[in-house]
Amino acid sequence: MHTDTALRPWEALKALAEAGDAKRLEKYMSAIGPSEAFRALLRLTKEEQERVLTTLPPVEAADLIEEIPEEHAADIIEQMDAKAAASILNEMESDEQADVLAEMEEKDAAAIVAEMDPEEAADVVELIRYPHFSAGGLMMTEYSAYLENITVGEALDDLSARVAEEAVGQEAHVYVVSPSGALVGVLDLRDLVLSARTTPLADVLKSPLYVGAETDLDDLEEFFDRHDFHAVPVVDAHQRLIGMVRRSAVEEALTERADQDFLKSQGIIGGDEIRTMPVLTRARRRLSWLSLNIVLNVIAASVIAFYEDTLRAAIALAVFLPIVSDMSGCSGNQAVAVSMRELSLGVVKPFEALRVWLQEVSVGIINGTVLGCLIAGAAWAWKGNPYLGLVVGGALAVNTVVAVSIGGTVPLLLKRMNVDPAVASGPILTTVTDMCGFFLVLGFATIMLSHVAMP
Amino acid sequence: MHTDTALRPWEALKALAEAGDAKRLEKYMSAIGPSEAFRALLRLTKEEQERVLTTLPPVEAADLIEEIPEEHAADIIEQMDAKAAASILNEMESDEQADVLAEMEEKDAAAIVAEMDPEEAADVVELIRYPHFSAGGLMMTEYSAYLENITVGEALDDLSARVAEEAVGQEAHVYVVSPSGALVGVLDLRDLVLSARTTPLADVLKSPLYVGAETDLDDLEEFFDRHDFHAVPVVDAHQRLIGMVRRSAVEEALTERADQDFLKSQGIIGGDEIRTMPVLTRARRRLSWLSLNIVLNVIAASVIAFYEDTLRAAIALAVFLPIVSDMSGCSGNQAVAVSMRELSLGVVKPFEALRVWLQEVSVGIINGTVLGCLIAGAAWAWKGNPYLGLVVGGALAVNTVVAVSIGGTVPLLLKRMNVDPAVASGPILTTVTDMCGFFLVLGFATIMLSHVAMP
Repeated sequence: MHTDTALRPWEALKALAEAGDAKRLEKYMSAIGPSEAFRALLRLTKEEQERVLTTLPPVEAADLIEEIPEEHAADIIEQMDAKAAASILNEMESDEQADVLAEMEEKDAAAIVAEMDPEEAADVVELIRYPHFSAGGLMMTEYSAYLENITVGEALDDLSARVAEEAVGQEAHVYVVSPSGALVGVLDLRDLVLSARTTPLADVLKSPLYVGAETDLDDLEEFFDRHDFHAVPVVDAHQRLIGMVRRSAVEEALTERADQDFLKSQGIIGGDEIRTMPVLTRARRRLSWLSLNIVLNVIAASVIAFYEDTLRAAIALAVFLPIVSDMSGCSGNQAVAVSMRELSLGVVKPFEALRVWLQEVSVGIINGTVLGCLIAGAAWAWKGNPYLGLVVGGALAVNTVVAVSIGGTVPLLLKRMNVDPAVASGPILTTVTDMCGFFLVLGFATIMLSHVAMP
Repeated sequence: MHTDTALRPWEALKALAEAGDAKRLEKYMSAIGPSEAFRALLRLTKEEQERVLTTLPPVEAADLIEEIPEEHAADIIEQMDAKAAASILNEMESDEQADVLAEMEEKDAAAIVAEMDPEEAADVVELIRYPHFSAGGLMMTEYSAYLENITVGEALDDLSARVAEEAVGQEAHVYVVSPSGALVGVLDLRDLVLSARTTPLADVLKSPLYVGAETDLDDLEEFFDRHDFHAVPVVDAHQRLIGMVRRSAVEEALTERADQDFLKSQGIIGGDEIRTMPVLTRARRRLSWLSLNIVLNVIAASVIAFYEDTLRAAIALAVFLPIVSDMSGCSGNQAVAVSMRELSLGVVKPFEALRVWLQEVSVGIINGTVLGCLIAGAAWAWKGNPYLGLVVGGALAVNTVVAVSIGGTVPLLLKRMNVDPAVASGPILTTVTDMCGFFLVLGFATIMLSHVAMP
């Protein structure tokens, strides 16, 4: 039943775009909302997507593009005619323009920028130079700034005029700059309306808090944690006002980073995947991660090859090898998750690996003992051989401590080496705990071979 | 070197609190900032934490508590004297009060509420009834609402007075209600300052957009996607205004949910873990997840036990069992991650499992073939037996398709059954792909036993 109604939007979109009915297309899309419109768009071919976007007035197309995750927006825009793409980008906010262009191939981005409004183009070329997760990368260039020597009344009049022509956003504050462009103050709308119209701005401004363009996302989060502002001004090395970062941009970036970390930890790297992307692209991206993992897996499992004789003498051990390695992996992943979380909350710093290790070892000993006893009991009960239980239980207990030690500390060490812990922690953890688990089970069994060998 | 300066804050905090020096404590904490203060607080004993919070003026203590993740804030507040706790809670915003109280044991929360300002208490008792990730759970009761028959001038004067006494926040809009409390309009500060003071609000109000208290987080995200508002009013079943949800509250909740999903997917369930929590609590929480996993692991590995004869005849297979199960797990986790992401973006709906399955199968066949060939080559090269390669390569190829099919569709099916996919997807995936992988390797080997058996 619902499949029917759910399929309709993309068919409707396609039909309206083919008919070239801009008015009805616009109305239809605003009725279904941007996220449903995005879903529908993804079902269309590249040509159909382009037709929808060129049929819409550029302002509406820009609104739609701003709601789509950047990478997918870039994919869609990139294939369009540069002129059509530029007319849509012209209508977007500068921070969104930069985000979308940054996701494209340089050549395509340059072609589009060449077709944009010269003023918009100049701004975005500046913005695109900054790393995505920095104040420069998150800032926008649409803000209101006035010279310090004009009056409250002049500022209010200009503001009203610009509000009327929708040239300013909802931000309820303005910046005050010196003739050289240096940031000297900030005023919120309330300060303006509650002051006499003839007062010069210089007499009512408050001294501003600001950040540098290179400020990173963690520091921006900290800033907005400490200050209940909607936005913060960004200055260059000469204290000149160059942009404004909104709280919402920081919060979006934090969600984006958390999502990316989750994807990376599960082996989706090199950009988000949406299943409407071409199969070969998806397969290739996933394979780049998998082929590294298979090499690591083969290395880890090669430990087993050294103990073929032990294994042949006590074939029951083969049942426990994957159990010990999987369970240690689970314990280690818990420690990885807690470390990633503590790093992102800032309650642990990368140099505190020793403290984290001590805190993990205590949990590892308790959990290793409990899990070791469980698996030892299962082994004993199954084969009636307490030594088999001792071997696999002992191996699991020791390997659990190893796993939490590695899982807890590796993210900190990687962070310290400036390697992304979301990507690298998992494979390192799995490889080491697998090798170590196989070695412990088979090593203990070799030592006790006369007790665990079974015909 | 840095260890020195990093250790200082918590010692300083402790010393200042013991000296009872509220002024300097306050100054010190605002100098280091809330996240550093939180880090420092975590290093103190429960008694020392309480001393710090009771030494601070309640307003400052409330500011600090608002910056701490809810669960940890609740832990700290819960152990305090109810009266002291209530005086801090009184100074918090209503949505934060509700979040913190919701994390406590009911008895403790009730004791604190009993000591709170009656008015604050009445509000928070209302708020606490709503699920955390709903409009009711995220809303605050501090907003400005005026009757429709007062004038613009009266509203502005009241607003100025309340701004002066800091009784209203930064939100640049007010709500207009009928005498029965029904929401009839919204006005932003600009509308007010640009209108004649004698105009009744009824003549300038805009008709409001609003949500019901039961609106869930996904719908709120969608709302703020569609509308560039800072906040949305919340109404009850009788259209009466009962609260306001800020955009920032929705964005925080989204980040919180993304973090929780990551933690859950790695086996940290039943609440966040911070390593300063008691060891036994941490061990117990992690064990609840591990002990379920060990049972599933034993069930999966028991497949191996049925093929002991095959394994004894071709002991080299033991090396490949963990490789096939681990690699399939990796492929399956990639599919889980993409499904979780698509669900959260809303580009896939829970009833579209069939479409997702088809899209995963195509990637699975490609990647399974590539990985199968790699492992087959390795097996052949190692033992010089092409049949061994055929068995393990074939098993990995087939199992990769199984893994991506399960990994892609299980999160959708779980969501449809209202089970949290972040928690349950991993164990289901691992158990099925392990069982299936062992069965495929050993089953294929049994069929070809005369070719793969090696002395």
